[in-house]
Amino acid sequence: MGQPRIEQIQRRMAVAGVDATVLTLPENVVLATGFYVRVPGFGLVLVPQEGEAVLLVADFDRERAERVWSGEIRLLVAGDFGPAPRAKGLVSLLGMGSSLAANVRRFSEESGVAGGRIGFEGSFEQVAPPILVEPNTVGLPTQAMLKELFHTEELVDLTAPLEQIRAIKTEAEIERIRVVNEIAELGHAALREETIVGRTEAQVRSMVEGAICDLGHGHEGAETVRALATVGAGEHLLTHGWQYAITGGRIVAEGDYVMVEMGTVADGYWADTTRTVVAGGPGSDLQRRADEVIREAAAAAFAAAIPGATGDEVDRVARSICERSGLEGVYPHQTGHGIGFRYHENLPNIFPGSDDVLAEGMVIAVEPGFYSDELGSGIRQEYNGVVRSGGTVPLLPLDHPLGNRG
Amino acid sequence: MGQPRIEQIQRRMAVAGVDATVLTLPENVVLATGFYVRVPGFGLVLVPQEGEAVLLVADFDRERAERVWSGEIRLLVAGDFGPAPRAKGLVSLLGMGSSLAANVRRFSEESGVAGGRIGFEGSFEQVAPPILVEPNTVGLPTQAMLKELFHTEELVDLTAPLEQIRAIKTEAEIERIRVVNEIAELGHAALREETIVGRTEAQVRSMVEGAICDLGHGHEGAETVRALATVGAGEHLLTHGWQYAITGGRIVAEGDYVMVEMGTVADGYWADTTRTVVAGGPGSDLQRRADEVIREAAAAAFAAAIPGATGDEVDRVARSICERSGLEGVYPHQTGHGIGFRYHENLPNIFPGSDDVLAEGMVIAVEPGFYSDELGSGIRQEYNGVVRSGGTVPLLPLDHPLGNRG
Repeated sequence: MGQPRIEQIQRRMAVAGVDATVLTLPENVVLATGFYVRVPGFGLVLVPQEGEAVLLVADFDRERAERVWSGEIRLLVAGDFGPAPRAKGLVSLLGMGSSLAANVRRFSEESGVAGGRIGFEGSFEQVAPPILVEPNTVGLPTQAMLKELFHTEELVDLTAPLEQIRAIKTEAEIERIRVVNEIAELGHAALREETIVGRTEAQVRSMVEGAICDLGHGHEGAETVRALATVGAGEHLLTHGWQYAITGGRIVAEGDYVMVEMGTVADGYWADTTRTVVAGGPGSDLQRRADEVIREAAAAAFAAAIPGATGDEVDRVARSICERSGLEGVYPHQTGHGIGFRYHENLPNIFPGSDDVLAEGMVIAVEPGFYSDELGSGIRQEYNGVVRSGGTVPLLPLDHPLGNRG
Repeated sequence: MGQPRIEQIQRRMAVAGVDATVLTLPENVVLATGFYVRVPGFGLVLVPQEGEAVLLVADFDRERAERVWSGEIRLLVAGDFGPAPRAKGLVSLLGMGSSLAANVRRFSEESGVAGGRIGFEGSFEQVAPPILVEPNTVGLPTQAMLKELFHTEELVDLTAPLEQIRAIKTEAEIERIRVVNEIAELGHAALREETIVGRTEAQVRSMVEGAICDLGHGHEGAETVRALATVGAGEHLLTHGWQYAITGGRIVAEGDYVMVEMGTVADGYWADTTRTVVAGGPGSDLQRRADEVIREAAAAAFAAAIPGATGDEVDRVARSICERSGLEGVYPHQTGHGIGFRYHENLPNIFPGSDDVLAEGMVIAVEPGFYSDELGSGIRQEYNGVVRSGGTVPLLPLDHPLGNRG
């Protein structure tokens, strides 16, 4: 049975002259195998230049791994505090003793790559947060460990080809990202329909995240769901880093813009969505006008996001609609970015000057935003879409109500 | 005015022959300055071997930085998409244009360290998750950027001395960790007092996290609060990686053990607490007996955690109480670890074979756990405490009820 992601990685390894690759970041394990590592360290993929890749998982995860990965699975022993590899990011608190090192050595011998060129994830400096504990990352100890276990001095950073491969999603992956968008919509619906006037930003965050986690588990088979939201209200949206920075104690007043910026993850696939509503009412003329402009900018950005367009071009389309709207204000952040294996993927970047080129099958987020003294606040709406030949197709409709009922 | 943490870092830099150090991880920025970076990238500390350290923050964070840091503050420009440094982890989605590079170059010139030995965070392979987006980490691009900006080929990994410095908390830091334990207790109280029978694990998680975020903001001045919990119930605690791995859709039944393992962060300071309760009742004789054993093990571990004891010795004390209890079962994970600047700190590790030596002022978590077919489930209770001359003083009492009311 074919493993198209492994074959893609092997083709890039051949180009780079790499004999074997070790993937340790959960987001790249999802890419290569579909398996979602929930305990950092307990999930690695070993890819030889030719032949079968091996997925290493914790013994307690075997059944879950078998459901998604048809290739070879070998087990890491949880609860063994014997001699551990030196890479701290991979030394789980649950212990894995010498089973990681033994597995890597066995793979090295069987595939005959000892002393060869080993590919690794050297430049992933932003990594997807796991559902609970600290992420594992790739620093000097992982490099030292790989050199030791493969008896080599030649490590090859495969970050760029991995990012290029990841940027184009398969149809199966797009379906998973569509599902996580639907799960995010459970939170958007709560934001529109629940009472938010009189609640703090922090309480609105709990309500929205809670709706997603309460209702999202089990949605189209989702096993592991988490939402990471940040909520800003009223003038906070103007003064607190455009609401990337805070969720605080401000109490939502009737007529406030209330913005929820949110990453949602289901079994390793991410959505990035933002919704701004007007608390307790339909919004003033100015609030509704700004919302129209923002959504027009988002729709235009999606229409412009055709294969061959650059990130700069798409950004310019969204930005110019805001500039030409006659509204005063600033648009101080990016227009968008890739999405799927992480909340924010680096390819493509959609901001001024980005020469990243869009291609069919990319999944992107666009998030035009507008912040002004006139509004006394700010508004941003954010949508995810799939780049198709004729433009980008949104994964959720852009015509949701601005008003909140409560 | 003294900056004891900067002076400690400078003393270790002198020993290592390092001319300047760049701290980019939010947890080390908290260590050095008390400032909590909420947007990864927008917060760095530049430490010369002699003289004043400089804190770089986003322009929109200036006032917040001035409240906690008496030293020099310089600004990164948010919303500038001009030429950015090549380190992706530090290229915020909000843009910072050339202001990061300009600030580092200026510091390099003013402190006369160009071409010198530059200290960096090369081996932090587990990093504290930020409140919203991806963490920034230290990979090859950050190293290349530092070499370029400081005109040097000599980077010195200061991870080990930084971890040693961090492990011993100041009294002011201990106070912050005590406050975040109090904030976590808001969630523990909800777990005891709210209805959990008939709710899914995911719904219990939302309820507990929500109580912390709803009530925790503003508690003793806390500005930014988040809880990351995972919830397991009944037999899931036996089969799903001792509940580190999952929060799922299992519906809580009366009489189930329900375990909440949780990291709580308030303004950059972390608590790590676990509470197991019995849903809807006081628990069976066996459930109460296992709970007594676990708490006795935790108390004994704290009593044994005196300055000079090793992680292995403390682990052995807790483990032997469980073994001698006459209960059947396994204790498959670590007994504990450092806590404070991250959910799990590497120093000290408290597990079999750990030769980490405890010292006064360390803050540790102990978390004995017991999982058995006889229980059909598992139990773990986890507490944080401060290592003092006579033993470790818990930050929250160990005598909470086992029963849940609802």
